Amino acid sequence: MATAPLSRLCIHTITTKPLALPAAAKAYRDLGAAGITVWRESLKPLGIKESARILTDSGLKVVSLCRTGFFPAISESDRQKALDDNRLAIDEAAAICAPLVVLVCGAVPGIPLAEARRQITDGIAAIIPHAAKAGVKLGIEPLHPMYADSRSAISTLSQANDIIEELRSPHVGVTIDVYHVWWDDQLESQIARAGRARSIFSYHVCDWRSPTRDLLLDRGIMGEGCIPLRQIRSWIENAGFDGMIEVEIFSNDFWQLDQLQFLKRLKSAYLEYA
Amino acid sequence: MATAPLSRLCIHTITTKPLALPAAAKAYRDLGAAGITVWRESLKPLGIKESARILTDSGLKVVSLCRTGFFPAISESDRQKALDDNRLAIDEAAAICAPLVVLVCGAVPGIPLAEARRQITDGIAAIIPHAAKAGVKLGIEPLHPMYADSRSAISTLSQANDIIEELRSPHVGVTIDVYHVWWDDQLESQIARAGRARSIFSYHVCDWRSPTRDLLLDRGIMGEGCIPLRQIRSWIENAGFDGMIEVEIFSNDFWQLDQLQFLKRLKSAYLEYA
Repeated sequence: MATAPLSRLCIHTITTKPLALPAAAKAYRDLGAAGITVWRESLKPLGIKESARILTDSGLKVVSLCRTGFFPAISESDRQKALDDNRLAIDEAAAICAPLVVLVCGAVPGIPLAEARRQITDGIAAIIPHAAKAGVKLGIEPLHPMYADSRSAISTLSQANDIIEELRSPHVGVTIDVYHVWWDDQLESQIARAGRARSIFSYHVCDWRSPTRDLLLDRGIMGEGCIPLRQIRSWIENAGFDGMIEVEIFSNDFWQLDQLQFLKRLKSAYLEYA
Repeated sequence: MATAPLSRLCIHTITTKPLALPAAAKAYRDLGAAGITVWRESLKPLGIKESARILTDSGLKVVSLCRTGFFPAISESDRQKALDDNRLAIDEAAAICAPLVVLVCGAVPGIPLAEARRQITDGIAAIIPHAAKAGVKLGIEPLHPMYADSRSAISTLSQANDIIEELRSPHVGVTIDVYHVWWDDQLESQIARAGRARSIFSYHVCDWRSPTRDLLLDRGIMGEGCIPLRQIRSWIENAGFDGMIEVEIFSNDFWQLDQLQFLKRLKSAYLEYA
């Protein structure tokens, strides 16, 4: 299978968390990357307007804004607050010319998962008009089942596809992150299903380390783990996706390195394994 | 739903890891528990024969032996070694009058999951004659997808049921542990499927803590997490299972407590939440 070209390399600002947005944008550009996905916390120090200017000047394509969602809540007022934050995120995305907002859909210990999924579907339905008006799409990202307690009741691509079928909106699709779904024996068929619905909006890569020492902050760089990255990319491409390949790594280890050195390593790993 | 009776309470020796087998057996009996599941490491200090005598004298029902499996391997010779260990475990189970051995089926980083499942199916098929001769059954335990890298390529009850259907042996069934499968939207239907095949061999409970601080050793006691224990038990019982309810908790926190005090807490949690 062909090497992924640099023209499809996108990096998430969280991947180089120690770098402020201007330094990150310059470093990604210098590396030869083509895209950037912006985490909302990266917008805070300089504000939306100045951040947007930096992004425009960088020449990088802004691929998406991460992240909002977190729809389920015990009280109606908390569910409304979540919708408000989702609308705010959509506005932020529009302001930085990001065509997509990634949804981490949420879960709350004590709310049954089926009920949480109901609230998620209703919550997404409620923000579609705002997204449509802003020209921003919504990517449902299934999260690994180890986050089903408090981060996402959407644990499989199958569940995300179900919601997309129910909502029937061109503004709602999926964000597929290999870290969350690599283990699933339905992955190939569900990628194909999402492809038929033209709903694969974005694609995230990293790797699964053995052992994994932390549930959240120990993601591996491509090639150092057991995720069959090339195989999954072939499924995604067979399903019609030819967009950016986004490197999203949360790692206490990598954040402690010199970030420019780490980016060189990331580029090699991308070219060799993604 | 009715409270689970003490006559169905079984405790895994790993749950009270600091207690040696004689102390564990006495403590479970004093607590009013009816069963014990023995981890193989608990048999080592006194050997099989003396351990068997202690178990018989305890009056507790020996529910199962944990654990063997780990079938996949890169080399044929390592796969044969795994089969030898499985046969040994079956012999150990027979020696302590345990009617069941629990299989943690294994996974190896670098072996594709589908291939690992093929090796698992072949491995189980290879040990069935030994199990049948010994009068010991084999329980396939699906493990949480967060263990798909190195502990089990069987991540869902659906996959376990598939293997059972393929092997068509009365000696092979499933061990359902809520910790591993609670998040799965197919759980109810797959429990029913296992029930129709009369293949639910054993049932393990604990809880999922939020946050979970360690991938392996931070299980919660029943009631302190988000697993819908009563609902899952109702599915299991509707599927025809009326066997022991086994408390299996790995927890660095609980292992540091006075184990007799912890057992009192475990009993209360069992009666209130299991």
